[in-house]
Amino acid sequence: MALLVQKYGGTSMGSVERIDHVASKVAAARERGHRIVVVVSAMSGETDRLIKLAKSINPRPNPRELDQMIATGEQVTIALLALALEKRGVAARSYTGAQVAIRTDQAYNKARIRHIDTERLLADCEAGTVPVVAGFQGVDEAGNITTLGRGGSDTTGVALAAALKADECQIYTDVDGVYTTDPRVEPKARRLDRVTFEEMLELASLGSKVLQIRSVEFAGKYKVPLRVLSTFQEGPGTLITLEESKMEDPLISGIAFNRDESQLTVSGVPDRPGIAAAILGPIGDANIEVDMIVQNVGADGTTDFTFTVHRNDHDRAVEISRKVATDLHAKGVRTAQDIAKVSLVGVGMRSHAGIAAKMFKVLAAEGINIRMISTSEIKISVVIEDKYLELAVRALHQAFDLAEAPGH
Amino acid sequence: MALLVQKYGGTSMGSVERIDHVASKVAAARERGHRIVVVVSAMSGETDRLIKLAKSINPRPNPRELDQMIATGEQVTIALLALALEKRGVAARSYTGAQVAIRTDQAYNKARIRHIDTERLLADCEAGTVPVVAGFQGVDEAGNITTLGRGGSDTTGVALAAALKADECQIYTDVDGVYTTDPRVEPKARRLDRVTFEEMLELASLGSKVLQIRSVEFAGKYKVPLRVLSTFQEGPGTLITLEESKMEDPLISGIAFNRDESQLTVSGVPDRPGIAAAILGPIGDANIEVDMIVQNVGADGTTDFTFTVHRNDHDRAVEISRKVATDLHAKGVRTAQDIAKVSLVGVGMRSHAGIAAKMFKVLAAEGINIRMISTSEIKISVVIEDKYLELAVRALHQAFDLAEAPGH
Repeated sequence: MALLVQKYGGTSMGSVERIDHVASKVAAARERGHRIVVVVSAMSGETDRLIKLAKSINPRPNPRELDQMIATGEQVTIALLALALEKRGVAARSYTGAQVAIRTDQAYNKARIRHIDTERLLADCEAGTVPVVAGFQGVDEAGNITTLGRGGSDTTGVALAAALKADECQIYTDVDGVYTTDPRVEPKARRLDRVTFEEMLELASLGSKVLQIRSVEFAGKYKVPLRVLSTFQEGPGTLITLEESKMEDPLISGIAFNRDESQLTVSGVPDRPGIAAAILGPIGDANIEVDMIVQNVGADGTTDFTFTVHRNDHDRAVEISRKVATDLHAKGVRTAQDIAKVSLVGVGMRSHAGIAAKMFKVLAAEGINIRMISTSEIKISVVIEDKYLELAVRALHQAFDLAEAPGH
Repeated sequence: MALLVQKYGGTSMGSVERIDHVASKVAAARERGHRIVVVVSAMSGETDRLIKLAKSINPRPNPRELDQMIATGEQVTIALLALALEKRGVAARSYTGAQVAIRTDQAYNKARIRHIDTERLLADCEAGTVPVVAGFQGVDEAGNITTLGRGGSDTTGVALAAALKADECQIYTDVDGVYTTDPRVEPKARRLDRVTFEEMLELASLGSKVLQIRSVEFAGKYKVPLRVLSTFQEGPGTLITLEESKMEDPLISGIAFNRDESQLTVSGVPDRPGIAAAILGPIGDANIEVDMIVQNVGADGTTDFTFTVHRNDHDRAVEISRKVATDLHAKGVRTAQDIAKVSLVGVGMRSHAGIAAKMFKVLAAEGINIRMISTSEIKISVVIEDKYLELAVRALHQAFDLAEAPGH
C-alpha cells in the first residue's frame, strides 16, 4: 500500500465536470489500496482573473494583499474536490496552506517553503480520509498568507511528498508524459518512460513546459520520485528519477527548443581578462537574464562576445551593450532576432563521443547554418535561423532514432 | 478622536468603482481624525455564486467544505479594499476571520462568535494603519473556517465594535437610515434620527430589512451604539441606541408591515387548559415557525384559536391543524392567505394610552376590517386584508404625524 501525492493542475480543475473526473481518479487510486494526499491548483484562469481585478483597483498592488486575494483560487477548488469525493462516498477534507500548515518565508508572491506539518495529513490518511491540500500557497510565521509564484502547485506537491516520505509524487497535467520533443513540431515524438532529473531540468528550462523547474530541482534534492501523467487519458506517464536506466542508456533523451531569445554580439572587443564581466555586469544590473554566452578565442588581439537574452529585453540589452562597446573601444554591436535555439539533451551523452559532430552533420545536410554553439555535460545547444527550426527538430529526431523505443 | 468600526455590505462592495468609493469614505473619516476599523462583505452575488457552484458538484454539500469555500468571497474584498486604500495613500492591512482571530464555535454555516483577539487591530490603529476585516467568517479552535450565516457581516461589525470598545459601529448600506415606514408604500416616510434597540428589533423583525436582527440584539446586549448610513449618499443616518431620546418621545417611531404570512384558525376547540400546546406542539415539531398567536375568551365552552405562519408553510400547517382539530373534536380549520400584517412600533407607546384605539379608529374610517389583533409593550399589530395594506400604512402614517419631525 503506497502513499501517493497526486497533484492536479488548473486545466484538470477547470470545470465542475473536470473536478468530478479528478474525483473519480482519486477514488480509483484509493480503491487500488493506496493512501492518497491530493494537491490542487485554482481553476484555470482564476488566478489571472484575480490579479487583473487587483490591478484594476491598484496598478501596483501590495504583494501581501495580492497573495491574500489570489490564494482564494485554490481555497475554492480544494473544497469543490472534497465535495466531489464525498459524493462518491470517499471521506475527504480540504486544507488551505495555512491549515496544513505549510510554513514559508515572508517573500510574498515568490515564497519558499520552510517546513510542513504532516500530523493532520498523516492522521487523515490513517483514518481513511483523503486530505485535499491547496497548492501554490503557504503561511508565514505571523499568519500572513503567501504564495509560491507561478507553477507553485507543483512545488507544493513535491514538498508534501518529501515531507510525508511519499512513495511517489504524481503530477497530473494535460499531457501524458515527457516527450522526446514537442509533438506539434515532430508528430513522431515519443513519450519517455523515464528520464533523469538532470535531463528533465535541461528539457524543462529549454521549453518543454511540462513541469515547473523549481519542483524538479526540489524533487531531485529530496529524492522524491516524480511522475508526470495525463488527467484525461490513462497511461503510465513519465517517471522522473535519480536512478539512471538499467538498460543501456539511449544517447539522447529529447530535443528541446525555443524561439523566445534574441542574440547580441559585441564584436572586436579587446581580448583581455575582465571583458565578460565588463559586458554582462551592466546587463545583470538592469535585471536582464542572459541565457547562452559564447566567447571564442581571439585573433589579432580582439574577440567577439555573443550572448542571448529574452526577446522582450532585446531593446534594452542593445542600448546597454552599445554603451559598453563604446567604453571598451569595441567595433560595435550586432544583433539577430529571428533566431531559434535547438538543444539535444541526454545523460547518455556523457559517455559517448561524437554526438556533437553527428548533430552538426545532420544540420549541414539540411543546409542549416549554425550561428552559435554551447555545450554542457548532458546538452548541446545550437542557435539557428528561426525559419529552419521545425526542419532541424525533425531531422535530428530521426537521425537520433528518437521515434523508436531503444532496442526495437 | 473616536474609534469607529465601519461595516460595508455586498452592494457597497459590488464593483471596482464602488470599492474605490468605499475607500474614499474611509479615507475621509480618517482625515477627520478618527481611527477606523473596516468590516466588509463579499461582492453582492458572490456568496450565492459559490454556493451554487458547490451544489452543482454535490447537491448536499458538507457544511465545513461549504464554509471553506464561501469564506473566499470576503477574502477577496478585504484585499481589494486594502489595495484601494493604499492607492489613496492610506496604510491598510487586510485580515481574514482566522487572521484576526475571530474565534467561533464549530457550528458551520451558522457559527457564533466566542472571542475576538484585538491586539493586532489595536496595534494597527495605533500605527495609523486601517485594518480591513472579513465579515461573516471566523475560525474554530481546530483552525477550521466557519461562517456566521446570512447577514453575518453585520454581526462581525458589532462584535468587533464591542471587543474594541469602539465609540460607534457604523453599518453602511444602500438605504440612508431607518424610516418611519417603507418609502415605496408611503413616499412621505421620514428618516428617523434615532431609534431604540427595542424599536429596531420590532421594526426589523417586522420587515424593515435594514439590519440583521442578530446584530441588533448583539449591539443591545453589549451596549454598542449602532448607526445605519448610506454608502451612496451623505447624511447622518439613524442612530440605534439604548438611551431613549431626551426630548419628549414621539408616540410612534414607525410602521412595519409584511405580506409573507397566512392565517389559520382552529375553530370551536374546547376551552380548557393545554389547548394552545396541543395545537402548536405538532406545528413546532414540523419546524414551522409561528408568528402571531391569538386566542379569545371562549363562549359556550369552546373558543377559536388563530395563528399565522409563513406562506411557504401554509399547506403543511393546514394539514397538521386539520389532524389536530379532528383529535380535539374541534369544529374545523379556516384559513386566509390574502392577508397582511401592519404594526405600529414605538417605545413612547408604553406611557401613552389610546394608541390602539386611535389605530383602530383610523382603519375603520377607511373601511378596513381588522381580522386579528396582537399587542406588546411597544407594538400593536393587526392583520387585515392584503389589498388594503398600502391604504392602511398611509392612513396611519398621516394620523400619527410621522411625516413631520416631532415638535415641528
